[in-house]
Amino acid sequence: MTYSEIKYDVADRIATITLHRPESMNAFTGTMMLEMVDALGRADADDEVRAIIVTGEGDRAFCAGADLSQGAKTFDYDARSDRPDKKGGSPVRDDGSIDYSHEAVRDSGGRLTLRIFECVKPVIGAINGAAVGIGVTMQLAMDIRIASESARFGFVFARRGIVPEAASAWFLPRIVGISKALEWCYSGRVFDAAEAHAGGLVSEVVAPTALQSRAREIAREIAENTAPVSIALTRQMMWRMLGADHPMEAHRIDSRAIYARGRQADAKEGIMSFLEKRAPDYPNEVSGDMPDFYPWWDELDYS
Amino acid sequence: MTYSEIKYDVADRIATITLHRPESMNAFTGTMMLEMVDALGRADADDEVRAIIVTGEGDRAFCAGADLSQGAKTFDYDARSDRPDKKGGSPVRDDGSIDYSHEAVRDSGGRLTLRIFECVKPVIGAINGAAVGIGVTMQLAMDIRIASESARFGFVFARRGIVPEAASAWFLPRIVGISKALEWCYSGRVFDAAEAHAGGLVSEVVAPTALQSRAREIAREIAENTAPVSIALTRQMMWRMLGADHPMEAHRIDSRAIYARGRQADAKEGIMSFLEKRAPDYPNEVSGDMPDFYPWWDELDYS
Amino acid sequence: MTYSEIKYDVADRIATITLHRPESMNAFTGTMMLEMVDALGRADADDEVRAIIVTGEGDRAFCAGADLSQGAKTFDYDARSDRPDKKGGSPVRDDGSIDYSHEAVRDSGGRLTLRIFECVKPVIGAINGAAVGIGVTMQLAMDIRIASESARFGFVFARRGIVPEAASAWFLPRIVGISKALEWCYSGRVFDAAEAHAGGLVSEVVAPTALQSRAREIAREIAENTAPVSIALTRQMMWRMLGADHPMEAHRIDSRAIYARGRQADAKEGIMSFLEKRAPDYPNEVSGDMPDFYPWWDELDYS
Repeated sequence: MTYSEIKYDVADRIATITLHRPESMNAFTGTMMLEMVDALGRADADDEVRAIIVTGEGDRAFCAGADLSQGAKTFDYDARSDRPDKKGGSPVRDDGSIDYSHEAVRDSGGRLTLRIFECVKPVIGAINGAAVGIGVTMQLAMDIRIASESARFGFVFARRGIVPEAASAWFLPRIVGISKALEWCYSGRVFDAAEAHAGGLVSEVVAPTALQSRAREIAREIAENTAPVSIALTRQMMWRMLGADHPMEAHRIDSRAIYARGRQADAKEGIMSFLEKRAPDYPNEVSGDMPDFYPWWDELDYS
Repeated sequence: MTYSEIKYDVADRIATITLHRPESMNAFTGTMMLEMVDALGRADADDEVRAIIVTGEGDRAFCAGADLSQGAKTFDYDARSDRPDKKGGSPVRDDGSIDYSHEAVRDSGGRLTLRIFECVKPVIGAINGAAVGIGVTMQLAMDIRIASESARFGFVFARRGIVPEAASAWFLPRIVGISKALEWCYSGRVFDAAEAHAGGLVSEVVAPTALQSRAREIAREIAENTAPVSIALTRQMMWRMLGADHPMEAHRIDSRAIYARGRQADAKEGIMSFLEKRAPDYPNEVSGDMPDFYPWWDELDYS
Repeated sequence: MTYSEIKYDVADRIATITLHRPESMNAFTGTMMLEMVDALGRADADDEVRAIIVTGEGDRAFCAGADLSQGAKTFDYDARSDRPDKKGGSPVRDDGSIDYSHEAVRDSGGRLTLRIFECVKPVIGAINGAAVGIGVTMQLAMDIRIASESARFGFVFARRGIVPEAASAWFLPRIVGISKALEWCYSGRVFDAAEAHAGGLVSEVVAPTALQSRAREIAREIAENTAPVSIALTRQMMWRMLGADHPMEAHRIDSRAIYARGRQADAKEGIMSFLEKRAPDYPNEVSGDMPDFYPWWDELDYS
């Protein structure tokens, strides 16, 4: 797949996905979503990639939100001809009622965040400018968000007559708490990086010129010190146990994981490199060495 | 319904519910609960109302907790004759055992917080003084809490030989975290507004004279800028997805919501008013224009 | 049971469990786990005990993590002969596949944290030094953690080729948020008490010489002012409702609890001592006076 609205590159074992529509403040489109989903799959499948950075081209915007060039019919999917799933037909039945379980009803933002949720590499958001609407909700499935001092955030949905999307009703309260989540979504106002940091939306705010190097520093610390299979399991365990009703669910999985990993070469290398005070060299790879109980969940379909 | 223990008024598209037993520090009774439930229903049904403020009369107390004028039998419901559900009979069976699924067992505080949970308008707590026992747990189902510098808080239940009620075991850890929730409930001590703010219980602390105007300012920002149907959906999506095991549950609902809202006039007005840089005038109303998939949940009964 | 790797003592209605392998920085073993589980059971069963403090012997370490004296086979349970469950046989089947539901697969750390989860007394961690690996994850099921300025923390699992254990994928994001949890587990680095405090892992940092007295002060406030049966119910309600999908689940339990407790002598003493402005003297005990609906859950088995 060749990309027209993002850039993808790999260096120093770090994949960088850059939202790239600088003439439109990197506004989100169906094409951008499909390209991002593809790029995330590439990064996950490439054992050379130990972490993923998502950022925006230029210094004005990370992503200014949904592309509004279609004006009033922007969110009226049935009135549009450019939706990715249009070929699957319309969810509007002959009698005018809507088949909400139809694939074409699916929100593009959610298709992206659910794909990020599935990632087996750490995903770091480097928020370089305005991040509004889907520009901010897409970040919520990422693991770590750092912001430039020039970043701006806005959960503007209620000011556009729509609602928070991209599964943000699930993600946002788990990141910033229910009260802050509601406050931001009720007001719909745009706020600065300092407020995002105070509210727990981003973990650090740095000078614009320091943003990319700081993101790479975080990624590099992971790449240099940790076992990729351990990181992949950790990512899926942590995110999925957010939805577990009882710690026994985590105990079942981490018992399996410690047992299986303890027999693999990585654990022996991890302990011995520590005892010998040397840098580790982990032999196991995500592509071929994930334990046999992985994945431990059933995939959920949209419907 | 005429109210004897609360006041209800609507101005500037904001409903204000004032706990009004100033001679008893606005202590909570079964009557107050029934009146609050009624008032919340009125506010929800009135399209003129865009937000709800809950506060207490006077400058001493928001709500000093359960009315203790019945002394030792305060929480011994079977020994009392004034419980709202008394007419439904006693949950104590002939053999002395208790039918816990009986409606009369239901905690009054929980009947109130579950009603707040159902609200389709933002609920802002303006905590003007002492808030102890049910006086603080009733706040937990509200969306935003701001406090006067003179406010005091206390999860005093273990010092009264009872337990945290009003479903606070569900709400409190989701707002302030499990450790802070336990710490406050274990000690049972009364603490000040600064500690409430540091712990995440309230989002702002203001001078006593500024409390009501600040609460109205928050409410007015919502009323002036956002679409009421969007706010109603946002409130129910955020609170209910706190209990969802997987982000797919949010994706299913927000896909439906974006699809349905995108076809409605509000979304077109939201986009066009933004592009034309003018104030929006949303035509859709909560009373008649909620999308056809709402509500998407099954009601739960007490039992 | 006589303890060889911990110390257990009771004074001032506070049980103290001290990890006691000072020659090995209190490193964790199967024996230590079994002794801790036994000691927690003793404290729970003893009505004289109102709170439990867990700390480490000496001033270097709380617990330095799993004992690595077996080197590369530390986590390769099948290659070891000293595992507590070894007598139950091996989970490795004749064909080389693994029976993950076998009891011997169970992670020792999770057996400990799940036992702490079951406690009916408040559990306070007094973190006196290095707390790495299981040394930090065992703390997550405790209610309150305070740290000495000399404490150090590290979720080092990915640097050892294994994964976060002791059900920490469930506990940690609920305490510090998903982003901070992932950040600490991805980097695997050791960090100081100030960072632990800023991130919400510990609630207070005190001078090394003040640690034990501060922990006892917290415990004493509980012991002197609150009803033990109320505290026991509060602990189980709060932790278990973290996994409840809807506040109705809490309403069902706290309605039962208020109803049952309101009839017991503790509630009458709690109210009357408050009204009479005197210290309370609660007659009900955890050993014999828990309400008849307790426990309200089904025990979960590992499998």
